[in-house]
Amino acid sequence: MNLSALQACIRDIPDFPRPGVIFKDITPLLGNSAGFRWTVDQLAERIAAHRPDALVAIESRGFLFGAALAASLDLPLQIVRKPGKLPYKTISMAYELEYGADTVEAHADAFAAGDRYAIVDDLIATGGTAAATAALIESQQAVVACCAFVIELGFLHGRDKLARFPVESLLHYED
Amino acid sequence: MNLSALQACIRDIPDFPRPGVIFKDITPLLGNSAGFRWTVDQLAERIAAHRPDALVAIESRGFLFGAALAASLDLPLQIVRKPGKLPYKTISMAYELEYGADTVEAHADAFAAGDRYAIVDDLIATGGTAAATAALIESQQAVVACCAFVIELGFLHGRDKLARFPVESLLHYED
Repeated sequence: MNLSALQACIRDIPDFPRPGVIFKDITPLLGNSAGFRWTVDQLAERIAAHRPDALVAIESRGFLFGAALAASLDLPLQIVRKPGKLPYKTISMAYELEYGADTVEAHADAFAAGDRYAIVDDLIATGGTAAATAALIESQQAVVACCAFVIELGFLHGRDKLARFPVESLLHYED
Repeated sequence: MNLSALQACIRDIPDFPRPGVIFKDITPLLGNSAGFRWTVDQLAERIAAHRPDALVAIESRGFLFGAALAASLDLPLQIVRKPGKLPYKTISMAYELEYGADTVEAHADAFAAGDRYAIVDDLIATGGTAAATAALIESQQAVVACCAFVIELGFLHGRDKLARFPVESLLHYED
């Protein structure tokens, strides 16, 4: 495997979820065991360099990479979800979208003060969800070790919202 | 790790998502790297015995275990989601709930005729989602190799809906 073989495992879906958007479909990558393994290994190496104490996976495609990475790195995994999904006492962080607003939630005991957390998601677009997750982590006096993504839509400049943190991504799209 | 240590990683949440239900919260297990690793290893061994060609993870907590298992077993991973989430051409299967109905969706190219699929989810309750997933797999002339769960709520008899398939689970609750 290499980056161009990885890129060949990502399927472009025009006009999803709305007209004009080209959605990056990761299901062919999941269906390619060598590709998925390689992706996890590459991200694991980059994440490990930032010495996290735990990973934080963002619902729900982030769960796919976060869980495999947690098992691979032997690190604890915390999850961030959409509102109302987590059963225990929660903390939350609202953030703005292009049209409207959204919120991320975590369990109140998810983040320990002083511990270092690596945020994992499949893709960074405008960066709103990752930035809200980072703010949620910091609201608990915990530390964002890095943010790691399989895919970065560079033309949406999501990295700018995460400028205080190391950002790792494997595949960059500039248009 | 052993089964009682695993059980200690599952948190009971009373009255979630509705009064009278005791929700089995797996987030403490995810946050325990030795526990998560052991759970994945135990399920991997049981699943491997049924010789699947690929795994099928059910949204969204099933993604957490399915992805770690796919990486561990070096098997392709397919995903089943709630309607409207998957970007490519989809196939779907409706099923009845205690109150109302629901639908599972997969990509139209997820299941290859004759291939063997192991269904993975965190928990089996009434078994409706897993049974609908099995029906979706069989609708493509593919084979259900087994159904594997971390937690089985035995008192809800979900296994009865999966009687034609091998069912594996690590933790059984009988009340």
